[in-house]
Amino acid sequence: MAKDLHRTNFANEIIGVENSPVHAQQALDLGIVDRIEPLDKALAESDLVIVAIPVDKIAVALPAILDLIPASTTVTDVGSTKRQIVDAIKDHPRRANFIPSHPMCGTENSGPKAAIEHLFEGKICIICDHEEGKPQHLALVEKLYQALGMSIAYMSSDEQDHTTAFVSHLPHVTAFALANAVLAIEDRNIIFDLASGGFQSTVRLAKSSPQMWAPIFWQNRDYMLEALEVYIQHLKEFKECLKNEDLDQLIQLMTNANKIRGVLDGENSSMTKNEETIIKLYTK
Amino acid sequence: MAKDLHRTNFANEIIGVENSPVHAQQALDLGIVDRIEPLDKALAESDLVIVAIPVDKIAVALPAILDLIPASTTVTDVGSTKRQIVDAIKDHPRRANFIPSHPMCGTENSGPKAAIEHLFEGKICIICDHEEGKPQHLALVEKLYQALGMSIAYMSSDEQDHTTAFVSHLPHVTAFALANAVLAIEDRNIIFDLASGGFQSTVRLAKSSPQMWAPIFWQNRDYMLEALEVYIQHLKEFKECLKNEDLDQLIQLMTNANKIRGVLDGENSSMTKNEETIIKLYTK
Repeated sequence: MAKDLHRTNFANEIIGVENSPVHAQQALDLGIVDRIEPLDKALAESDLVIVAIPVDKIAVALPAILDLIPASTTVTDVGSTKRQIVDAIKDHPRRANFIPSHPMCGTENSGPKAAIEHLFEGKICIICDHEEGKPQHLALVEKLYQALGMSIAYMSSDEQDHTTAFVSHLPHVTAFALANAVLAIEDRNIIFDLASGGFQSTVRLAKSSPQMWAPIFWQNRDYMLEALEVYIQHLKEFKECLKNEDLDQLIQLMTNANKIRGVLDGENSSMTKNEETIIKLYTK
Repeated sequence: MAKDLHRTNFANEIIGVENSPVHAQQALDLGIVDRIEPLDKALAESDLVIVAIPVDKIAVALPAILDLIPASTTVTDVGSTKRQIVDAIKDHPRRANFIPSHPMCGTENSGPKAAIEHLFEGKICIICDHEEGKPQHLALVEKLYQALGMSIAYMSSDEQDHTTAFVSHLPHVTAFALANAVLAIEDRNIIFDLASGGFQSTVRLAKSSPQMWAPIFWQNRDYMLEALEVYIQHLKEFKECLKNEDLDQLIQLMTNANKIRGVLDGENSSMTKNEETIIKLYTK
């Protein structure tokens, strides 16, 4: 994000706050940040604060950050869950300075060296409970994501946690479990030798950081349990077809799954990705 | 495959046998085949016959193909399962002309228009029960896959079916079931808008053809049931961690899954992908 905010001249200067001296030096060396400062100094000098740490740490750090910022500072986060984060600051006097956001993109890699440009372009950012932020803070965060080339969707924190449980968090668990299942059964050399493109793409997310993802699953565990239950039921349908030798139903299950092609390729969408910014209000 | 065999001059001429007049014309127009002929004429004029149809059809067509070929013709197939195919011709007088093979690559697309060059390069081809083929037929099929840039692994049909159940067929079911679970819960526009790269790569295989994959699952259903059972158990472990609020075990499961990174990136492999051809004999 810092790379793109430099490149697009959205930011004049980017100040990093970083616990790890190694990562701090890498971020400086790579030109990702202009300087590294302690938290209080960085907060005092910034117009916009972007909190990009694991979601359990956001819930802890955010009240302290809101305590320290000047009255006019805008704060956002990039966490994948929202209910617990919003709940942690719901009565804070600076609540309206905070615009909760979830840019839906990333890779399975982490650390300053994993930073790549153009990661956000054409992707969606969810902004949550936008009516609870002051208009100028909302406007600045919208402008931030527009500068990154993202489209914006507006949802309640509850709706975002439910939806991302299915379209983001569940796919991570399916990949982690697939890796564990294959590692439990197969010789490592056989996996390496035989892993086709299909296996590699399906299991890719299993490379993701437990430090980042465990708190996400944890904060969203009620919806994750729902998503896992639904998913296991759908797997059991495949199993029953094979067990009961019901070939017609097996083909039916796969034909239904094929509909994801139309959805992902946009045939059924109301949205034009080419528009510069699309603002949608989802209502349940 | 035909594209690459033209490009590498492995084949002087490629004759297509095709039921669909539309696909036959496309294959001619795209230069994938030099001519289209009826099966008996094509078999009479070919040195090497490559059977590339759904695996249930291979089991039916292969005895008829072996009936029709001249004594010196080599036959191979590209099916993803092997036990039922090999079983269908085990007592055929031309059994030794047939070299069962499974090149481990592909895309989720099908038909002549989906043909792409260099698909096979750097991938693995499994040759099964190679001791049952005559040496000259084995040699020609090995040369075929070497021309495509593939490495070769040798296995029994039983071992190939068990291994591919885990590293190829299971990932397809996990993707089909993920698509069905998400399609069952979420609004299509929400899926389209929010689908991140992570979701798209994990669910990609759900776009695969039921006509191709149902017979594969069907022929391999005993090992598929085993693989699905193992996979569901690993999913349930995640579910139990969330239900029992066991964060340590959750992190442990993800840390174990991370080992797939080392395996896929080759840190634990005995194999150098750069070698032109690697011939391995797996023994259980």
